[in-house]
Amino acid sequence: MKILITGGAGFVGSRLARSLLARGTLCGRNLSRIVLTDQFPAREELASHPLVEVRTGPLLAQCEALRDEAFDAVFHLASAVSGECETDFDLGLRSNLDSTRALLDALRHRVAGGAAPTRLVFSSSIAVFGPDAAYPFPTEVGDDTLPMPQTSYGTQKLICEHLVADYTRKGYIDGRAARLVTVTVRPGRPNGAASSFFSGIIREPLAGEEAILPVDATVQHPVGTVQRMVDGLIAVAEASREAFVGRSAITLPGLNVTVQQMLDALEAVAGPKVRARVKPQRDERIAGIVANWPRGVRTARAHALGLQADASFEDVIREYIEDCRRDNPAALKGLDS
Amino acid sequence: MKILITGGAGFVGSRLARSLLARGTLCGRNLSRIVLTDQFPAREELASHPLVEVRTGPLLAQCEALRDEAFDAVFHLASAVSGECETDFDLGLRSNLDSTRALLDALRHRVAGGAAPTRLVFSSSIAVFGPDAAYPFPTEVGDDTLPMPQTSYGTQKLICEHLVADYTRKGYIDGRAARLVTVTVRPGRPNGAASSFFSGIIREPLAGEEAILPVDATVQHPVGTVQRMVDGLIAVAEASREAFVGRSAITLPGLNVTVQQMLDALEAVAGPKVRARVKPQRDERIAGIVANWPRGVRTARAHALGLQADASFEDVIREYIEDCRRDNPAALKGLDS
Repeated sequence: MKILITGGAGFVGSRLARSLLARGTLCGRNLSRIVLTDQFPAREELASHPLVEVRTGPLLAQCEALRDEAFDAVFHLASAVSGECETDFDLGLRSNLDSTRALLDALRHRVAGGAAPTRLVFSSSIAVFGPDAAYPFPTEVGDDTLPMPQTSYGTQKLICEHLVADYTRKGYIDGRAARLVTVTVRPGRPNGAASSFFSGIIREPLAGEEAILPVDATVQHPVGTVQRMVDGLIAVAEASREAFVGRSAITLPGLNVTVQQMLDALEAVAGPKVRARVKPQRDERIAGIVANWPRGVRTARAHALGLQADASFEDVIREYIEDCRRDNPAALKGLDS
Repeated sequence: MKILITGGAGFVGSRLARSLLARGTLCGRNLSRIVLTDQFPAREELASHPLVEVRTGPLLAQCEALRDEAFDAVFHLASAVSGECETDFDLGLRSNLDSTRALLDALRHRVAGGAAPTRLVFSSSIAVFGPDAAYPFPTEVGDDTLPMPQTSYGTQKLICEHLVADYTRKGYIDGRAARLVTVTVRPGRPNGAASSFFSGIIREPLAGEEAILPVDATVQHPVGTVQRMVDGLIAVAEASREAFVGRSAITLPGLNVTVQQMLDALEAVAGPKVRARVKPQRDERIAGIVANWPRGVRTARAHALGLQADASFEDVIREYIEDCRRDNPAALKGLDS
C-alpha cells in the first residue's frame, strides 16, 4: 500500500501519517510507503521513518511527475488557509483550485493508461456553509444543507468537492470528500485565522499566557480534536463505495459546544487560575466573521460509518494535554504554576 | 449602455440580442452598442445592425483583450453543451470553467484599475440538479434544493455559479446567475443531446416529418420558450442587488409538463394528423438519462422578480409557430399537409 499525503507537513497531515504508520495498514493492506508532499519540510520524526519519503515544494509543480507514479491511496490535504485566501485571491485559486485539478488530472492520466482509479480522500471544510439573504442559516448544518460559502476558501473547497464527485462519476478516480470541523486544540502560535481563538483560549492559558476572547461566550461552534478528524479521513478512505453512500461530501462529526462550555471545561480540567487567564475583549471584526459560521453540525452519514464526535470538551482538553506531554511539555508550563 | 453577450450567435444569445435591440434600453439606459462574441458567426440580421459588433473566435482567446475594454453589462451565455462535455471532458473544462474564470478575471482586472464592478448575468442550468444515493430527488427542485449534478456540464455550471458568487462578494463584479430550464421548441435539427426529443416531438411533426419519442409519455420535465428565458435573463440583469435577494443562483420559471400533455397540446394546436407523426420507440439510454432529470421546478424567487412560466404548452407551441412564420416558414410545411 503506497500512500500519498498532500499537505503532509501540516498539523492534520502529520497526524494522519503518524496514525497510518501506527496502524501499519489501510483498507486491510500493509503499508509499504507513505509519500509526504508539502511546501514546508516534513517533521523530523516522520522524515526519518524508513517507510516515509518526503517531497518539498508546491504541489502544482509536482503533479506532472505524478502521472508516472502509482499510488494506492491519496489523501489530498494541501490547501491555502482561509485567511490567506481572503488576502490573496490568486493564491487561493492557485493553491486550492488549480492544484487540486492538476492532481485529479494526474490520477486521471493513469486511468487513461489502463490503471484502476486511485482512491482519493479530499479534505474539505464546514467553511462551505454560510448564510445567504435568500437562505437564512439553519441552527445546525448537515449533509443535506445547501452550501453557501462566505469566503473564497469555502468556495474553493466546495468547487473541489464537485470536481472530485465528477472525476469519480467519470471513473477517473475513486474519490470521496470529507468536511472537517474546526480542529481544536491546535498547538503552536496564534495563526491570524478568525478561528484562532477557539484554540487560543485553551492553549495559551495552559502555557501560562493570557488569551483574548474576541466573541461572546454564547457563541456555539462545532469542534473536534485532530485525532477525531484523522479517524474520519481514514474511515472515509476505507469505506466501500456502497457504505459511503452517494457521491457527495460528508461532514465529519463535531462537538457542538459554546465558548462558555469550553471555558467551564478548562476550569474543570486545569483549575480556576488557568481559566482566569482568558480575558474577554470583543473584536467586532472577528465576531462578525464568526456570526457567519455554523453553530453546529448534524452528521448522520458519518455516524453510519461508525464515526462519533469527541464525548466532551473536557476530553478534548485532556487529549491536547496528553499530546503536549509527549511532544512539547513546555506548552503546559501554565498548568502547574 | 455597452453590452457584451458571450455565446451571442447561439439560440438564446441571438434572441437576447434581438430582444435588447427591440427594447432599446437596459437598466433604464439607452443601448449604445451590443458586442456579440461566439466561436460561430453571428446571424446576419444581427451582424448587420448598426449597434451590433461581432467578434468570432473562442472566448478564452478574447478575454485578455477584454481587460482593456469597458462594458456596462455582460451576459455570459457561451458554453459547451451537455453532450459535448460528456464526450470530451477537457473541452468542457476549458469551454465552461476556464473561459468563465478568464472572463471574470478580465472584469476583476478593470476593478483593480479603478472601474466600478461590471454587472454580469451568468446563464446556468437546471442540470446542476440531480439525484444522489444520499439524497433522493425531490419531485420539484427549487432554489433551496441541494444541487447534485450528474453530468460534467452540470458540474461546471454549478462551479461557475459559485465563482460568480465569490467574485461578487469580493466586489470584483456585480454578478448574478440564473438557471435556465429546458428550452422548447428549439428550431433546427436534432442536436444529439438527450433532451433533443423535447423539441423534436413538436418540431418534426410540424415540419411534416416523423419524430421518435424515446421515453414514456408519463415523463415530466420543466420547459420554457426561449423568449421566457430571455425575459428572465433581462429581469435578473435589471434587478437591484436587494430585489435579487442573496448571492446564489435563481431558477427561472418553467412549465412542469408531461410528455403526454405536450402531445395533447400538439394535437389541440395542429390537429391529429400532425400528432400522429410522433412514434413511440423507447431508447433505454435516453430514458435512463432523463430519469436523472428534475420533474419540475419551484421558483418563488423568480416569481418575486415578476417572472412567470409560459401559461400552457399550447402557448409554447403557438409561439414557436409564430417564430417560424417570421423566420422560417418551411419549418411549418407539415401544418397544412
